Amino acid sequence: MKLLNIDLINKSYNYKNLSKKSLIKGGRALIAEVLKESNVANAYPLGPENKLIICNGALAGTGVSCSDRLSIGAKSPLTGGIKESNSGGDCARSLAKLNLRGIILNNKISDKDWYILKVDQDKIEFVIANEYLGLGNFEFKSRIERKYSDNYNLISIGPAGENLYLNSAIATTDVEGRPSRMAARGGLGAVMASKKIKGILINKNGNSEIKGSKSKGFMKVRKEFHKIIQENERKEVLKLYGTASTVMDVQNIGALPVRNFSAGRYEHADNISGERIYDIIKERGGEGKNSHACMRGCMIQCSNVYPDEKGEEIVSPLEYETIGLIGSNLDISDPDIIAQINYLCNDFGLDTIETGGALGVMVEAGLFDFGETDKFIEAIKDVPEGGWLGRLIGMGTGIAGKFLNVRRVPVVKNQCISAYDPRGVKGTGVTYVTNPMGADHTSGLTVFLPIDHHSKADQISASYNAQIGRTAYDSLGLCVFLMSATAAHPNKVIKMLEELYDISLSEEFLNELGRKVLIDEFMFNESAGIPKDDYNMPDFFSKEKLAPNDLIWDFTETELDKFFSKLKY
Amino acid sequence: MKLLNIDLINKSYNYKNLSKKSLIKGGRALIAEVLKESNVANAYPLGPENKLIICNGALAGTGVSCSDRLSIGAKSPLTGGIKESNSGGDCARSLAKLNLRGIILNNKISDKDWYILKVDQDKIEFVIANEYLGLGNFEFKSRIERKYSDNYNLISIGPAGENLYLNSAIATTDVEGRPSRMAARGGLGAVMASKKIKGILINKNGNSEIKGSKSKGFMKVRKEFHKIIQENERKEVLKLYGTASTVMDVQNIGALPVRNFSAGRYEHADNISGERIYDIIKERGGEGKNSHACMRGCMIQCSNVYPDEKGEEIVSPLEYETIGLIGSNLDISDPDIIAQINYLCNDFGLDTIETGGALGVMVEAGLFDFGETDKFIEAIKDVPEGGWLGRLIGMGTGIAGKFLNVRRVPVVKNQCISAYDPRGVKGTGVTYVTNPMGADHTSGLTVFLPIDHHSKADQISASYNAQIGRTAYDSLGLCVFLMSATAAHPNKVIKMLEELYDISLSEEFLNELGRKVLIDEFMFNESAGIPKDDYNMPDFFSKEKLAPNDLIWDFTETELDKFFSKLKY
Repeated sequence: MKLLNIDLINKSYNYKNLSKKSLIKGGRALIAEVLKESNVANAYPLGPENKLIICNGALAGTGVSCSDRLSIGAKSPLTGGIKESNSGGDCARSLAKLNLRGIILNNKISDKDWYILKVDQDKIEFVIANEYLGLGNFEFKSRIERKYSDNYNLISIGPAGENLYLNSAIATTDVEGRPSRMAARGGLGAVMASKKIKGILINKNGNSEIKGSKSKGFMKVRKEFHKIIQENERKEVLKLYGTASTVMDVQNIGALPVRNFSAGRYEHADNISGERIYDIIKERGGEGKNSHACMRGCMIQCSNVYPDEKGEEIVSPLEYETIGLIGSNLDISDPDIIAQINYLCNDFGLDTIETGGALGVMVEAGLFDFGETDKFIEAIKDVPEGGWLGRLIGMGTGIAGKFLNVRRVPVVKNQCISAYDPRGVKGTGVTYVTNPMGADHTSGLTVFLPIDHHSKADQISASYNAQIGRTAYDSLGLCVFLMSATAAHPNKVIKMLEELYDISLSEEFLNELGRKVLIDEFMFNESAGIPKDDYNMPDFFSKEKLAPNDLIWDFTETELDKFFSKLKY
Repeated sequence: MKLLNIDLINKSYNYKNLSKKSLIKGGRALIAEVLKESNVANAYPLGPENKLIICNGALAGTGVSCSDRLSIGAKSPLTGGIKESNSGGDCARSLAKLNLRGIILNNKISDKDWYILKVDQDKIEFVIANEYLGLGNFEFKSRIERKYSDNYNLISIGPAGENLYLNSAIATTDVEGRPSRMAARGGLGAVMASKKIKGILINKNGNSEIKGSKSKGFMKVRKEFHKIIQENERKEVLKLYGTASTVMDVQNIGALPVRNFSAGRYEHADNISGERIYDIIKERGGEGKNSHACMRGCMIQCSNVYPDEKGEEIVSPLEYETIGLIGSNLDISDPDIIAQINYLCNDFGLDTIETGGALGVMVEAGLFDFGETDKFIEAIKDVPEGGWLGRLIGMGTGIAGKFLNVRRVPVVKNQCISAYDPRGVKGTGVTYVTNPMGADHTSGLTVFLPIDHHSKADQISASYNAQIGRTAYDSLGLCVFLMSATAAHPNKVIKMLEELYDISLSEEFLNELGRKVLIDEFMFNESAGIPKDDYNMPDFFSKEKLAPNDLIWDFTETELDKFFSKLKY
């Protein structure tokens, strides 16, 4: 396994062989280490000093279900702190097959052209990309396919990234080649654009194998791991209804984002529920799929393909966070519309959470009303044009709120809160304010734990454990949707790593990994000027009671400090 | 002397008699104390919990030259911290003649109307102001004069404040009734607007006298104080050329703001110098005046009246900060244009510093070019309209920079840097980052000290002394332009206070006062979530060398911490 280091300023590159000790270091751990050890903390996020790191985890390409997450990281132009955002799809696997743990983009292209990086086995090529500028991710992918046939996965940016908008995702292709698996959060698309890279082609047909992956020992424990997944009940829910199944769970808790986080239950929740979406997909048939694997060999298959009335695909996947932020948060109760907006966001390279948050704030400022679907779509279509409305969406919820002088702006570290109102799912609220990434459910979601989400009791522990667990999984390329099945079996993950790389790890390896990476990330943020205890929950969450349960955000700083006592940092 | 406390929610008010001990507490000291002792630190600055405090100083109305500054303060919606902004004019004196140290506006109007507060001797009246909404300060003042003859001074907001823009000043009238003495900084106009108060009328004809002001002892020391002013050399420069005399001083130091702080010397500085402005005023004659007193009895008279070619007044005054930020910073070298823009800013209620800074950032983003006067004026005229360009100016330099994704944004605590590049006048740079108000030269200007402004040596002391001195003066209603004459004679100020109020003060009273108020302000900011050591100088000042002297901003945090060692806080 190697690390591909590219210096964009002179278009040179080299491969660094990973030592045995470094082989298990991937994903979020690798990103934290590279960023912490460079001078990136003080860099301007859209300047040449920032690095864009794209990598897989230690189990990528070994046939372990849900182990092919692709992590992308940099200093975030949105939060000003460290950012790792990961996506499913086929890119992480294809990198592994090229014997690559990851790619680090250093500096920036200094000539007048934009480029595509073409990554093949043991070599890369710089291809001028000017002809693709301004294209959405889908048309870009089609043209790439026309030129290179089906031989490459694609990591790409759309117009939002090209415009250097802080609400800009990086798209990666799924197994069928859709550029719809998004490293959505933190404005990483703008970082890629600042380096003048429109796309990265990853050859799908690499032939490298990790030696241990064919060993009997590895295959045995992989089988055991798969059996655990197979027997998990939650897996069945995810397979049938996808992540949209979460809508009614959070509705029942009373913590859906409704009309810019002004209520916790949505009167039309049934219309946008996982069950309803399942029914629509089944009724319409055609290209629709209620279950779909974004990564090869995935046993959970929580992705879906949402079709229109003619059975033609509108978007894949249609997921919970999008339904929350674009749906209930904007009072859009028609899944067809949510799906159309989702497709536009994927095509332009926008984070759907940040987009829904920004539109909510724009409504709050009086630019339009909740539910004004046509106006929302018009505003989103202004993103590639770079008009005022497009820029409000493009700069994200926090800056839109500041510019429009809105008080109720649902952001932490300038990043929009995910689809769990922190008053109603308090442990996830603790995650929003204590984790190094800003408001991000993927950093430590607590909503599926069997605890009272309305009470403060035990929420610090719940968030702490979720953060440690997720950080470890994100560092190994493992999908979070495994966790309900496999989180209780860290020994299986450890054993797979030991067999694969012929190493020996402590029983506490996952906890130690999660803790170390979090501390690295907090250290990065501190160097970047963001104190770890900068708990900046917007004040309206403390002042407005959330209907119907009359909840407020009521954690004190002293209470939140306990997170860091637990972390021993 | 009394404090008038108004509760806007039920339109009630009361007078609080000031104890002997409290009589000398005015201006910035009173504002710091009232804000610190209330719950305002955690308040939303544009919500009812914020307080707007308008007050004079202990010597107001006693015939002491330059002692009638009017201080206005609140939690700033621009910086999020404490703000005191003071102006000359006739309001402070007329308050004193009504036996008032100040007025505190609590809560906000809760009915559908906007109001004017009419303040007379021992009573106030609420007058519905809806008919004046949308008016600029000048037309508003004319209509008030038509209705109430010449019996009132006016404290008012223009459209910028009404739009709740964070770049919004409060205008106060000068001796001739122009609403052009601006409490410009920190967005106080928006605070007044949030309370739905369009204007405050202060009866000019109060008959209260401070008992001691007629005493022989007081008159003797006042005479001595005036003699010191009379004999001061710098006073002569200010009287002839006004604050515009500073242009060539700062040009020579190499620290003028030129094209969004990208150079320190301006090739057309001669055209906008105090000497040139003097010549123009003298040549044109008519209403023009090279010297003008904004406060009654002022011996310095650094104000002016700038006329057009026909001799008709364009604006009064035309001052250094405006010339720097609107002139050299935007590459406008025609004083007529600067004067026209200055008038527009006064009329709309905009801070000229924040306006010039925002326009500079808009140029940096490519909206127009430097020197494109017509486009700048068009954009400023969009402020009352509430259009996109108007909003960029209206929300100020920092938010315009964020929204437009500009890297070179010259703000500290979200407030635009004044017309002294911190690389070239390092002591003033120290003031920008260490004082509680954000980038504000009035908090502690060092440019006239006989030190090497390019060297770091002694700048912490220089800034510390300037901050202490200015804070004390701002707390007594004394004009900063006195300082070159009277700063070396604190005993005269102390003696005047002792004679006036029959009290005894320590020799160190001014230093103790300055220090206490600064500490109160830092405590307020800390409660508001702004640490005292949040030294956030924009990074381009550290990375780009300032021509022609190749200077950078190179203070370390450890060096800046010495400010707080000196303050013993």
